[in-house]
This record gives sequence, structure tokens and C-alpha cells, in this order.
Amino acid sequence: MSLNSFGRLFRFTTWGESHGPALGAVVDGCPPGLPLSESDIQPWLDKRRPGTSRFTTQRQEPDTVRILSGVFGGRTTGTPISLMIENVDQRSKDYSEVALAYRPGHADYAYDAKYGFRDYRGGGRSSARETAARVAAGAVARAVIPEVSIRAYLVELGGNPIDPAAFDDGEIDRNPFFCPDAAAAARWEVIVDNARKAGSSVGAVVECVATGVPAGWGAPLYAKLDSELASALMSINAVKGIEIGDGFAAARLTGESNADPMRPGANGKPEFLANHAGGIAGGIATGQPVVVRVALKPTSSILTPVETIGRDGQAADIRTKGRHDPCVGIRAAPVVEAMVALVLADQKLLHRGQVGGA
Amino acid sequence: MSLNSFGRLFRFTTWGESHGPALGAVVDGCPPGLPLSESDIQPWLDKRRPGTSRFTTQRQEPDTVRILSGVFGGRTTGTPISLMIENVDQRSKDYSEVALAYRPGHADYAYDAKYGFRDYRGGGRSSARETAARVAAGAVARAVIPEVSIRAYLVELGGNPIDPAAFDDGEIDRNPFFCPDAAAAARWEVIVDNARKAGSSVGAVVECVATGVPAGWGAPLYAKLDSELASALMSINAVKGIEIGDGFAAARLTGESNADPMRPGANGKPEFLANHAGGIAGGIATGQPVVVRVALKPTSSILTPVETIGRDGQAADIRTKGRHDPCVGIRAAPVVEAMVALVLADQKLLHRGQVGGA
Amino acid sequence: MSLNSFGRLFRFTTWGESHGPALGAVVDGCPPGLPLSESDIQPWLDKRRPGTSRFTTQRQEPDTVRILSGVFGGRTTGTPISLMIENVDQRSKDYSEVALAYRPGHADYAYDAKYGFRDYRGGGRSSARETAARVAAGAVARAVIPEVSIRAYLVELGGNPIDPAAFDDGEIDRNPFFCPDAAAAARWEVIVDNARKAGSSVGAVVECVATGVPAGWGAPLYAKLDSELASALMSINAVKGIEIGDGFAAARLTGESNADPMRPGANGKPEFLANHAGGIAGGIATGQPVVVRVALKPTSSILTPVETIGRDGQAADIRTKGRHDPCVGIRAAPVVEAMVALVLADQKLLHRGQVGGA
Amino acid sequence: MSLNSFGRLFRFTTWGESHGPALGAVVDGCPPGLPLSESDIQPWLDKRRPGTSRFTTQRQEPDTVRILSGVFGGRTTGTPISLMIENVDQRSKDYSEVALAYRPGHADYAYDAKYGFRDYRGGGRSSARETAARVAAGAVARAVIPEVSIRAYLVELGGNPIDPAAFDDGEIDRNPFFCPDAAAAARWEVIVDNARKAGSSVGAVVECVATGVPAGWGAPLYAKLDSELASALMSINAVKGIEIGDGFAAARLTGESNADPMRPGANGKPEFLANHAGGIAGGIATGQPVVVRVALKPTSSILTPVETIGRDGQAADIRTKGRHDPCVGIRAAPVVEAMVALVLADQKLLHRGQVGGA
Repeated sequence: MSLNSFGRLFRFTTWGESHGPALGAVVDGCPPGLPLSESDIQPWLDKRRPGTSRFTTQRQEPDTVRILSGVFGGRTTGTPISLMIENVDQRSKDYSEVALAYRPGHADYAYDAKYGFRDYRGGGRSSARETAARVAAGAVARAVIPEVSIRAYLVELGGNPIDPAAFDDGEIDRNPFFCPDAAAAARWEVIVDNARKAGSSVGAVVECVATGVPAGWGAPLYAKLDSELASALMSINAVKGIEIGDGFAAARLTGESNADPMRPGANGKPEFLANHAGGIAGGIATGQPVVVRVALKPTSSILTPVETIGRDGQAADIRTKGRHDPCVGIRAAPVVEAMVALVLADQKLLHRGQVGGA
Repeated sequence: MSLNSFGRLFRFTTWGESHGPALGAVVDGCPPGLPLSESDIQPWLDKRRPGTSRFTTQRQEPDTVRILSGVFGGRTTGTPISLMIENVDQRSKDYSEVALAYRPGHADYAYDAKYGFRDYRGGGRSSARETAARVAAGAVARAVIPEVSIRAYLVELGGNPIDPAAFDDGEIDRNPFFCPDAAAAARWEVIVDNARKAGSSVGAVVECVATGVPAGWGAPLYAKLDSELASALMSINAVKGIEIGDGFAAARLTGESNADPMRPGANGKPEFLANHAGGIAGGIATGQPVVVRVALKPTSSILTPVETIGRDGQAADIRTKGRHDPCVGIRAAPVVEAMVALVLADQKLLHRGQVGGA
Repeated sequence: MSLNSFGRLFRFTTWGESHGPALGAVVDGCPPGLPLSESDIQPWLDKRRPGTSRFTTQRQEPDTVRILSGVFGGRTTGTPISLMIENVDQRSKDYSEVALAYRPGHADYAYDAKYGFRDYRGGGRSSARETAARVAAGAVARAVIPEVSIRAYLVELGGNPIDPAAFDDGEIDRNPFFCPDAAAAARWEVIVDNARKAGSSVGAVVECVATGVPAGWGAPLYAKLDSELASALMSINAVKGIEIGDGFAAARLTGESNADPMRPGANGKPEFLANHAGGIAGGIATGQPVVVRVALKPTSSILTPVETIGRDGQAADIRTKGRHDPCVGIRAAPVVEAMVALVLADQKLLHRGQVGGA
Repeated sequence: MSLNSFGRLFRFTTWGESHGPALGAVVDGCPPGLPLSESDIQPWLDKRRPGTSRFTTQRQEPDTVRILSGVFGGRTTGTPISLMIENVDQRSKDYSEVALAYRPGHADYAYDAKYGFRDYRGGGRSSARETAARVAAGAVARAVIPEVSIRAYLVELGGNPIDPAAFDDGEIDRNPFFCPDAAAAARWEVIVDNARKAGSSVGAVVECVATGVPAGWGAPLYAKLDSELASALMSINAVKGIEIGDGFAAARLTGESNADPMRPGANGKPEFLANHAGGIAGGIATGQPVVVRVALKPTSSILTPVETIGRDGQAADIRTKGRHDPCVGIRAAPVVEAMVALVLADQKLLHRGQVGGA
């Protein structure tokens, strides 16, 4: 029940501050015998790395992961897997102004209200750096669910959507935006460049599809697959909205339009003629692709002065001078994939635990 | 960690099937000494009751709650509080057709895939009847958080939105739709009547505001207040989307537009000049009103035949003849309030546990 | 993480006070498809019932259990199973004296210190009546682990031990003491009769053996099988000591004497030449019989006045006039079996969840 | 609910193998603002260190701890505290024989039965090295409960008990056995020397007293203070028995002899005239000293050949040549203190969470 842990059987706990010496994750409950090494994890971190393009924050972190326990002879032992990533590039001086005043939209004021003080350096624990630990843990989760493929991509940036008809899966890894629509990617380049130069920021919408999820995963009611996904995704910094399948659009359909008719398919499994449900019904996977969508608000560290108050309660202006991210949504795609993997790995073990089978 | 429980310190477990003899909840971790009796719970159930207007399902349930434990001398003892509601009006014969075929959009197929069989009567445990137990538990939660006011209402039905300028809080309880806009309520009456007669169904969007939440509640990262709300709300039957504050609209704003500037307020607390955040930053309450929104899909029990498959894997048509709900969103408002109350009660105790204080 | 719940995957929550209208348990996580009806549970409650002999408390409770959810067509559905037992014979007037003074050895003072007040009637929630709910839940657990046989019996009462050489399994159910040694049972009859007439009480030691536990159940470190058993058994009212295998006697052996040598056995499994370990090594079952032992202190409700203080802080004497139990250890045997069953059922699902297989 | 985590609000997760690069703990839920640095933790590790006398295992480990997160400006931030201890002295070659055969009394066979293989080096995760991580976590726990003093010492070794009348608290830290009786310490020196030379091993009994525990800590039923202590202590390697207060001796007393009479004391609190209960009644602390006792079996790595089977199922002899511990009980005292501290810290926060107050 740890407050910084997630999952029930396949459980991970993250630790580490943005400007501390390191950050990491302990992954517990991983089945034994799965092949695992640093080379299975590092590529996912590299996808996520800050400083890989001019469109993301300018901090240079190699994000090299080490496995400190839980693996022997190249395979998981079933005991806790400790992952560690050392922080290299920490510029505390960029954040000197924020020690004394609260950045609106950040958790500064809320943290102080809760704890009485905070580690103001670089966002402390609420910083997006913590997501590196999640991505590492997510790589371990993937080893548990080889039957599932998970793919996340941006469908909208700065209010500018892709053209679904132009969707090209291969395009996702060819541009810095995880965008499946080349034309949209070109438009977004302009949007983000302008935001960065203006010291402003924009939001984004990320969609993630998991295929190969067997019907049956997910427990009804409170460990519902959609509930767990919602919780996991909402915990990503800057997320303000979650949708499963049609999401808010479903609220505007009639029952007939929203139904996913079935007909007999291959191997005794049904073939679904639509997927408004997003692959989940009553909290349990149906075998359809699981489709989720998250809305990310624009970064709050902006260069325009914003009215705020200081720790002394007096009025103040605040302006972040240091490095900032003009669109956190860009690097959220690998994090969304990681969280989906973590939830699905946990659900697989829960299903197996209660019902049995492989 | 029970799969049918929710909450960490203030925890409730629900039980009961739609067509079983009863349903109920066990609420654990309630602080001792709080005044509590059936009369504190019953009104909330009455708000929720089916059969109270022609716009909701025609099943007649008195939903009378009994407190079987955890209260002595009119006050909570700190021990588990067992609540029970007996089912009275169960018409199993209305559901005879569904034993043999899967209703698209329902959890029928998914349940079978998971368990190998299911209690087909009336939706078994995925039925909205289970929400009666949640509403009862929510009433207990309110006793824990007297400093908070929670209010839910529909802002959209069948794709038809309210006019925010016409918002009248008093109107919410004067129409069958929990609608704060009298003109919209009149339009919705037509929409739902038409849907019911056509044997169709429509969706809705419910908004809920909690005022008086002290800054500081909520734990960063995985027990984030917004994560817990997302999980709790997504677990409500038919919910397909969740928003906090501006939600998906935030993804279309710039950083400057999305910021919530602060200025010094009364009693050393800040006064916020906007509330795009919806009262939560970094997973912790800021003291602003907490604003959430949920999207409910249209009911899947419709009278139009829908293509599906039977348990034998063969093609079939299905058409629910019995009672059905033309808009589950209508009765979701009290349930949304209950879930928000349950999460806030738990967060209050968690905060008090880790940090101390009243 | 509920404070009145136990178990991780196979989890139960109990509720109910000694003098409330009912008590019960919600069992969650039970695999679906297992045959279950009241007739599978009632016999275990009958074994435990107070008033079945003059050696136990004189309260007359039929302890009739009802299954309110989680079963359909005679089989578990995989959803929460709600069990309820109504209290019939409640004599509140017997406890009038205890409202004003604390009974030494009872939780009276501790409860007041924690909560500020308590339900003084009959021990409230700390009463042994709560164990009826546990025994009912334990019966459900047995359905999950048909491969395991569990047997508990007294090995000592009032300081008087059985003769291990005279151990006769059939004798256990032939006397009121669950005693496997007929001669000892006769001696105990005298001891308990004397205690009851004198208004005194005596303690006991209960041993429980579970055979058929497959090697591999149990998770190393904190969900260790012996840790979970210790926790479950210590939660039984009046338990003050726990042993696994040789227990405290192991502390007096040398390494060579305490070893359990192995030789090749049938079916590729080892044959153990001793069982000092009690069937558990490193927190994991070895396939040997699991042997545990618990020490129960004498009942604290005695008829001899004992020096105490009242709620007003002043000195007082207290003497319980009502019904009391001269040896709670007698009825603890079925409760010990139930707790062992509950732990093993949970461990089976946990093992299956992490490692897979049936 | 992680299987390698303990605690509910104040929760720690340990990781690391005996022969891996490092081991550590993540402590979550620590209240913010508590002073903490490596110098608060290192002394407790030094007490526990192997190689500090000829009576313990000959492995040389500096056990230097690093705090990697959760502390800022010398105070806890309320976020997870990651502690790491690097392994220095690992001699894998000493364990070559055990890769092919199972050491009786160790978890070797059980691990294989569960996982299909194991990290055989030095006991893998079941090794006593893991207790270093616990001791480090225990030091953090002490910061949460400054009002409590915790003291553990051996009361018996190799079947040879101390003389309670000769109890001298100052003696505990003056001999290598944490023994409060100088004469007994001299006798034990001979016993352990003989065992070590003979390649044999002996067991021990450790008692631990916690004073200053406020009445009220502990939750009735399943999070009972004695249940949690039992679970925590049984999870220590080699523990086979647990007692609270009089333990098994209570089973031999009458109700009158076992009662702890009360009379009015200072500050409105009762003065107890005895402490058979060991400070806990009904699962809640009474304010009396909390007294627990654990029995540790003799080490199983012995130099006398013991009959066993190999991984191939064939008969084999096994004899551990490397370093071994003639009495693990000696170094268990600091570990027992650490576990008691961890449980009490968690209970303090739980009590505060449910009931409020400082």
C-alpha cells in the first residue's frame, strides 16, 4: 500500500529526486526465469531521453540504467529487481528564484501546504525526471507480457490534430514527435519552435493501443482494467484527462451507434465489428485492441512572468529562467507505453492468480 | 488489496449481485466517534433510487439500508461498518434471452472469457445496482469530511450541453436530471422520452465540484488525488472518460493561458485567479475547488436487435426485452458524489497519518 | 490494506460486534467455479459453537450462516462472497459492571485509550464471537485448497500435556477438547470443571498440521508462509505465542540435530527424514507437513475480584458475573484450522499468480 | 501489497542478493521534516556487522550506507528514502558445492520447487545479508518514534539461559553476545568457540523490550500490534518461535495469575502491577512495556556432512566448506530491534491516520 508504489502483484516502487544523486525503481513480483539485462531496458530510456532534439528540454542526461538485483545468469530470479539511473546534469542555479516563490501550475504551493517545505530544486519528486524510473520499470513489465504489443503516439499537439486517414505507423519513429502523420509533424515543428522561442508552451494528446491483450484480463469493479489504466496514466505529470475507446465522444452517441457487434470469428473467438469500447467492457479485456488516450496540459515553467505569491505570503512575479520543456507531451509517449505495460503485466498475474492457467 | 475494495486507510468493500438477496458494503477504517445512523445514509440512496421517475429504469427498489455493525450509541466505534440493502424487485425472466447470447457493450463476453461462466441475471455484479452499496458507503465517508461540500450535476445529455451562463445551483434538485439549467432540463426531457420509446439510449457528462478541500491532501505520485479520483470514477459502470479541471481543453491552451495565478488572500492563504488545474497540482490539493468531469456512454441494453454471437460461438441476434435505462448518466450523479466523498475521506486520513494534525 | 482484512489475493474482511444484530465476512478473490453452499460451511461453525458442552461458555447461539452473494448455481462466481451469521442470544445485562471499569487482560483500557470510548457489551469486536465469521470464511478457503488436509487439536490444557505416544487421530472428535489422547481428555475434564466452578480459567496449547501443501507455496521475505501464519494466528483472541516446527525447542538443538536430511523419494520428490522445520524453509513450503503451534492464555473474564481502575481513573474492583469461558483454548482449535486454511488459500493464489501453473 | 514489502503507511521494500553488487531498501511514507543523515543509520549497521568478532561469520563487509533520495537539507522530505549498501566481500567459490545439491534446513530445495532454479550463491535472497537493509530501514523508523526506546538482548544461547537476577543493561554492549548477564556471556564464549571449531552451530533466544509506547497504538483484529510484530519477527531468517509477554508460559497460568491488575497512576494514566500481557491487549498497546521474544534455530550451513539429494534427484552428501555462522542468533538482536522499530513507526502513523492527533 505504499504511497509511491503501483500495482498489486507486479508492483514497482520508484524513488529519487530530480536533483538528487540518482533515481530508480524496485520492481517486485516479476515471475522468475524471464530473460532480462540492461540491454532490454536501455533502448526504452533512450527513446525518452531529454536533450535528444531541440524540441525538448535541454538537459543532457545519459540515463544509463544498472540492474542491481533480481537477475542471475541473464534471467529474473523472482526476487525484487532494483534499477538505478544516476543523475549527471543537474543545474541547481537555474532554479534559485523558485525557492522563494511558488510557480503557478506546479506543485510548489501544494507541497508546502502538505509538508511545510519542499525540495525546490528542479521540481523535486514531481519532476518529469522521475518518469525515467517508470520507463525502466516498464521495460521489465514488457518481459512479462510478450504476447502484447504496445504503441503510443501523439494525435494532437498545440490543438492541431493529425489526419487519421494519413496514419502511418512507420512514421511514428521517424520524427521527434512520435507523430504518425508526416504532414502534421511538419506543422508541429513550427508550433513547438515558436513556443520555445517565445518562452511559452503547448499541450498534447497521446493515444496508446495495446494489441494482443487476451480476453479475460482485468477484475470487475475496483481493479478494473480501465480503472487501473486511468490511475496509472493520471499519475503521469501534466495529465489532465483520460479516455478509454471513444471516451467523451461516446457520451454523444446512441446505444445502437456505440455498440460493438460481434460475429463468430476464428478459433472460436468472436470477431468484433467495431471498437467503441476501447477493448474493455465491465472492467475486463474483451480481446479487442485496448485503446486509451491522455490529455497533457502545457508546461508550467514558462518564461513569461506570472503573478504569484512568495513563501512569505506576499505578492510576487515569477519567471523561470532555466531550461524548460515547450511541450512535455512529446516525451510522454514512451511513458504512456511504460505505464500501460506495467498495468497489463500486473493484470496478467492477477488473472492467473485468481483463475489459474498460464 | 482486495480486488473489490477501494481506498487505503478509509476502505470499503462492496458485495452483492443484482439479482441476489441483498447487496452491501463493509466500510473499514472510519474514525471513531462520528455520529452515524441509517437516517444519515437513506436520503442519499433515495436520490439514487431507480423507479423515481419515468426517465429511469422501471425497477421498484426501496433500497432500505441497515447498519449491522460499527456503530454504538449513535456513533461510529472505529470498527468495520457493515451496511446491507436487500433486493426486493428482481425479475429474472426479463433476462432469459441473455443467458444464451452475449449483449454487445456489456461485460457478458468478457466475463465468460475470464471465468468460464457468469451470473447472467441482470448484469450480475457489473450491474448498476451495485452502485447502491457505493452510495451508502459514500454517506459514511461524508461524515469523515464535514469540511467539504460535494456537488454533482449533469452538464450534457445526449450531446446536448447546458448553458453555463444559466447555471442555477437550486435547479439541480428540482428536475429529474440533476441539471442546473432549467431550459436544458426541458430539452432533455424530450431527448430521453424519445430514446425510451424508441428502445434506444443516450449518454451524458457529469461534473462534480468539491469545495473546502484543504490544500495538502493528496500524496504525490501514485496515491495522487487525481489518480485516485480517476480510478474511483472510471470504476463506475459506463464511464469512458475522466477530466480534471480543464481536462482535454487544457491540451489546447498555452502555458500562459493555463496558469492559475495567485495573489495573497485572507488568512495567509493564496487567492487563485483561475482554476484550470481543477484544484489539484502535482497530485496534491491546492485549496481551490476540486473539479472533475466524467463521460458516460449510452446504456447497452437496448431494444434494437444487435448482431452478436451466442455462447456456442454461433451468430445470433440479441434484443433485451426487459426493463432498461435510457440514460444511466442521470442516476450517476449521486454515485459520482459518493465516489468523490470516498476518495477524499481516504485522502484526509492518509494525510493525517503521514503528516499529523487533526 | 484494510485494517480488518487479511490476505492479499484471497482476502477476507470480517465485521460485527458480539452484541450487534449480526456478524459476517466478505471473502474476496475466490476463484470461480468452485462448488459452495451453506452446507459446506455450517458444519465447521457447528464444531465451534458455544454452548455445545458444559465446558464452554453458556451462551446459546445457533450460528446459522447465510450466503448472500458470490455464488450462482451452487458454484462460486469469482465475485465477493458475503457471509452473514445473526446473533440471537445477547444478554447485555451481564456486562453492566464493565461499562464503568476496565477488565484487566481485556482490551477495555486499550480500546478507550485508542478510541475514547468503546462498545463494552460482551467485548465488542475483540470478543471471541468474531471468530465465527473467521470459521465461515475458512470454510470457503478450504474449497480453494482441496489438495490440503488441515487438522488441529489441543496438546496441552492447564499446563497438562498429552502423551505423544498415545496420539489417536480418531479421538480428537470424540471428546469436547479436540484432544487426541483419551486419558488426557479425562484429566482435562476435571481441570476445566474445577476452573469453572471456581470462577477461574486456564490456558491451552493448540497444534495444527497441514498435509499436502505442495513445495513452493510461500514467497520469500515478507509474505513468507510462516510470517503469514504467525500474523494470522496471533490475531486470534488470547494467543500469546506461536511456534513453527520445533519452535523454541529448535533454539536448544545443534545444527546437526536440527537438520532435516533428504533422500530421493517417489516421483522425483525428496523424502525427508525429519521435520524440525515444520514444513517451511526460507518462507517457502518444502512439501513436508506444515506444523504450527499456538499458546492461548487463560480467559480474563473471571469471577474473582481483580484490582483495576474505573473510567474515572479511580481505583475499583471488577468481577464478571455473567457467562464466561473457563478455557478459550478449547474452541480455538476450529479457529486455528480456519486461519491456516485462509493463509494457505491465499498463498496458493499468490504462487500461481507469480509463477503460473494450476 | 508487494511481497517483499512490509508495513502499511510506513512501508519499506528491500532488495538485493547476498552476492549481488549491492542491497538496499526503499522506505516510503516517512513523515517529512525529521532529521536524517547517514550518521543516523551507520551506527546501527556497525552493531550488526559480520566479522566484528571471532564469534560471527568471517566475511568482511564495511556495510557503508548511502542515502540516495528522500532527504534534503538534512531532513526527510516525505518522499521515498532510498538506502543502498554495497557488497564488497563476496567469495563465490566457497559455495560451489551447493549449486548441485540442496543444503538441508536452507531454502534451497524450496526455492527450486517454487522457481525452477535459484541464485545459489551465498543463500541468494534468503541470506542473512538482507538484514543489513532492514537494519538501515529500522534506523529511519526510529526517527519517527523518538518517544520509544527499543532494547534487544539474548536471554539464552545454545540452551544456556541467563540468570534474570543478574540482569545488567550496561553489560549488553560490553560483550559480543548482546548478553545482559556477564557470567552467562563467559559461558557462551565457550559454547560458541566449541561449536565453531567443531563446524557445528547453536541456537538462541532474543528478547526485545520497547518502552514508551503510548496506549492506543495498534488496530484491533488484523493489524493488531502483536500480529504485525509476529509477522515482522517471523520473517527474520532462522526464527522459529515468537512470544508476546509470558508467551507459552501464559498457557500454564490461571486467569487470576495471568491478570495485570491496575491502580490509578500519575497523570490520569493507570499503573500496572504486572505485565504478563507484554504490553498488548486485544491487539492494542496498553502503555506497558511491549515485550517480545524470538527463538532462532541453529545455522544450517554446517561442516558435518548431511544426507541430502542433488538437483538430479540422486542421493548426495553435503558439507559447506566456506564461511559460516556458528550462531546466527548473536547478530539477530540488532535486527529484532530494527523490525520492532519498523512495526511501531507504522502503527504510530496508522493510529494517527484513523484517530487523529499528533
